[in-house]
Amino acid sequence: MSYKKITPQIVEQLKSIVGASNVLLDTESLANYGHDETEQLVFLPEVVVKPGTAEEISSILKLANAELIPVTPRGAGTGLAGGALPINAGISLSMERFNKILDIDKRNLQATVQPGVINEVFQNAVKEENLFYPPDPASKGSCFLGGNIAHGSGGPKCVKYGTTKDYILNLEVVLPTGEIIMTGANTLKNSTGYNLTQLMVGSEGTLGVVTKIVVRLLPLPKYDLLMLVPFRDLDEACAAVSEVFRAGFTPSALELMERDALDWVSKHVESSVVKLEDDIQAHLLIEVDGNDQEVLMKEMEQIAELMSKYNISEVLFADSAAQKNELWKLRRKINEAVKMNAISKEQDTVVPRAELPKLVKGVKEVGNRYQFKSVCYGHAGDGNLHIRLIKGELTDEQWEGDYIKKAIAEIFTICKNLGGTISGEHGIGLIQQEYLGIVFSDKAIDIQRTIKKAFDPNNILNPGKIF
Amino acid sequence: MSYKKITPQIVEQLKSIVGASNVLLDTESLANYGHDETEQLVFLPEVVVKPGTAEEISSILKLANAELIPVTPRGAGTGLAGGALPINAGISLSMERFNKILDIDKRNLQATVQPGVINEVFQNAVKEENLFYPPDPASKGSCFLGGNIAHGSGGPKCVKYGTTKDYILNLEVVLPTGEIIMTGANTLKNSTGYNLTQLMVGSEGTLGVVTKIVVRLLPLPKYDLLMLVPFRDLDEACAAVSEVFRAGFTPSALELMERDALDWVSKHVESSVVKLEDDIQAHLLIEVDGNDQEVLMKEMEQIAELMSKYNISEVLFADSAAQKNELWKLRRKINEAVKMNAISKEQDTVVPRAELPKLVKGVKEVGNRYQFKSVCYGHAGDGNLHIRLIKGELTDEQWEGDYIKKAIAEIFTICKNLGGTISGEHGIGLIQQEYLGIVFSDKAIDIQRTIKKAFDPNNILNPGKIF
Repeated sequence: MSYKKITPQIVEQLKSIVGASNVLLDTESLANYGHDETEQLVFLPEVVVKPGTAEEISSILKLANAELIPVTPRGAGTGLAGGALPINAGISLSMERFNKILDIDKRNLQATVQPGVINEVFQNAVKEENLFYPPDPASKGSCFLGGNIAHGSGGPKCVKYGTTKDYILNLEVVLPTGEIIMTGANTLKNSTGYNLTQLMVGSEGTLGVVTKIVVRLLPLPKYDLLMLVPFRDLDEACAAVSEVFRAGFTPSALELMERDALDWVSKHVESSVVKLEDDIQAHLLIEVDGNDQEVLMKEMEQIAELMSKYNISEVLFADSAAQKNELWKLRRKINEAVKMNAISKEQDTVVPRAELPKLVKGVKEVGNRYQFKSVCYGHAGDGNLHIRLIKGELTDEQWEGDYIKKAIAEIFTICKNLGGTISGEHGIGLIQQEYLGIVFSDKAIDIQRTIKKAFDPNNILNPGKIF
Repeated sequence: MSYKKITPQIVEQLKSIVGASNVLLDTESLANYGHDETEQLVFLPEVVVKPGTAEEISSILKLANAELIPVTPRGAGTGLAGGALPINAGISLSMERFNKILDIDKRNLQATVQPGVINEVFQNAVKEENLFYPPDPASKGSCFLGGNIAHGSGGPKCVKYGTTKDYILNLEVVLPTGEIIMTGANTLKNSTGYNLTQLMVGSEGTLGVVTKIVVRLLPLPKYDLLMLVPFRDLDEACAAVSEVFRAGFTPSALELMERDALDWVSKHVESSVVKLEDDIQAHLLIEVDGNDQEVLMKEMEQIAELMSKYNISEVLFADSAAQKNELWKLRRKINEAVKMNAISKEQDTVVPRAELPKLVKGVKEVGNRYQFKSVCYGHAGDGNLHIRLIKGELTDEQWEGDYIKKAIAEIFTICKNLGGTISGEHGIGLIQQEYLGIVFSDKAIDIQRTIKKAFDPNNILNPGKIF
């Protein structure tokens, strides 16, 4: 398949669809839409188009099909796997104008929202109605709900409440061929035809462009409690994670932070809330939530008691909203801090949670052999650990070439052998696709390609992603 | 597509794949596998085959593809939409030999199980380990987990815990073309490729044959409390449902039973636990569960308090395990009791829960115009109401022909207009497919057909279902 270039004539057609002011061709705009948060990668689009309605997107996709022009949908550009990079140039389709919360239905605990709404803006809006939308990626202050759907995003709360997929009831989608469909119904249960809704979630903008989202909401829990447990041994911190769940607790967050991560981020945001003793190797950040303060206190004490059988230092119980916020800020900014401190590559590993100790041990062993350090942090309660490989003393050639790729493949093979996989919430996008064969058989990949072809016969929508 | 008949030669090939004793041709067997629990429908297969391994199923499907023979997978035959009926004859593929629980992984709160295991057998097995598998269809005493996956089955507990789809992590599936794949990973989070796992759930055996299931489990809640609230007004009972959730409660069950349903089932099972006063129109059965008995008592009282603003009679708080069991038995046997009492057709309607009053009002209004009665019951907390239309004075012609179909179409149109759909947990199968166009646009159906074709180019696996 060879794609056509954008001609002045096509630019005119795009302008007639979305209006001249929503078609950008200047160098600065192309540069802005040519990268996301994935390493240092840049791929410039030929044109940036900002549609305002599903019908406009339909017209754009019909044009793209007729002219064989690649279209790359884009949310806020916070992706970590390159899903929004226009690797074949063509059109960068920005969803930023789809920024309205259309309805918060308090009677049914549902909301209808456009995909360009920022996650945290939406969370705050429903909170005002005493409602709760749990998925909360670290980038919640800037990422779009549409991007969350594309990647099946998670976040700390997902260990108790589930990820984005568990909140999406129904979607309006423009198919790659231009037709607009609703994928399901606004109901909690649905056994009517194939689950198109869940096929769209996590499909990274390759099967359609989401233009309207119906989500379910929960009643907002009244209280939460937070504690930080410092471990002298990383392996023990990992082992403690599954212990909590086996004892019958379901915390609303259970995050792991390896020493370097917390050290760097504390300096990065100039926080002194955590006194990092010399012999501490890792921390668990544990939150419980619910409607009964006393029950929560008891739960927190019981979990702390459970932790005390490990080699831990003094537990920090957050005693104010400010302290909770500071601890959460530290956790959310780790990614940024590690990026500032070192050249690194992030892997989004996930395993059954009781296998975390084996995963981390395996990662460190691979690091020893390949002579790189790594820093681990993330959603340990879900078995979802972000592992940042640090370039350190590796040469540019080692870091960019087959050397580091072989090491990453070994890490992913460890995940696979533990029953896990290569992405828990970031997606495959551009940069992880060469590892897909580690977790899927040829036929399992093949059937996904066939689905892609059924939706997008000309392969114009986000081509070159996932597969 | 015209299918081939089963020849003696093909029977021999089938025997060589699964062994002679697992190929049934006698009249009684063909009759046994020619019906399920869907009305009075009978479609005889030409042969019943009982494979024991995924590899055997692979060989059967390769043979069926080569010879163009339709294959209809079958679980326990408890379906209510005709999904297991071999409407094109050919092979009835019985999964009854896949009846082993392979592993209960207490460390990870997961289990690996074969699809022919009975739901309740599995529930009891994990309960012994203090674990909990929530999906609990009324037929749990006989239905298979594989059938639950095929239909995305629910049950009373799903209002708090989610349906089958929310518990399936990973599946081994034999594709219609014979290849064996794993659809995902044994992890709580997964953003690796398309969600093949959720595409299989609810696909009613049209996209592949599930041969192994990895489910997630929960810690078993320690306590539950149950109460039965009698309403003098059906409309108020419906309105009270969403009130409970809006007040911030999440009961572990919230079932509605219209008067006739409870009356008939009480007689059917000879139970006297419920004293049915003359002026009672409906009951809500409400359960809460959790780990703190006192908290549950308080919740129950608060919910009862909430109910007291409606026109209700005396609330029955179940005061023993035996009484709870009897109330649940009544609820589960309604379907059977109504079937015994009247010729009827069941519709599996689902709407956003606050729209229940409008749905029920609409159903009764349609019934008045078309001159049939109906009895409503089911998972009101989910907005999922089973509506049994009663033949009563209708002629056979009206009951079997366009007359009743028009009425059903009107009911489903009401569902659609309220944001709902035509099946919450039973599936489309054979009998509901003519109504699919009410909730899906042509293109939305078309894209599902394209998916079917991508998986099953010769249309040999459960042909004629859903679409």
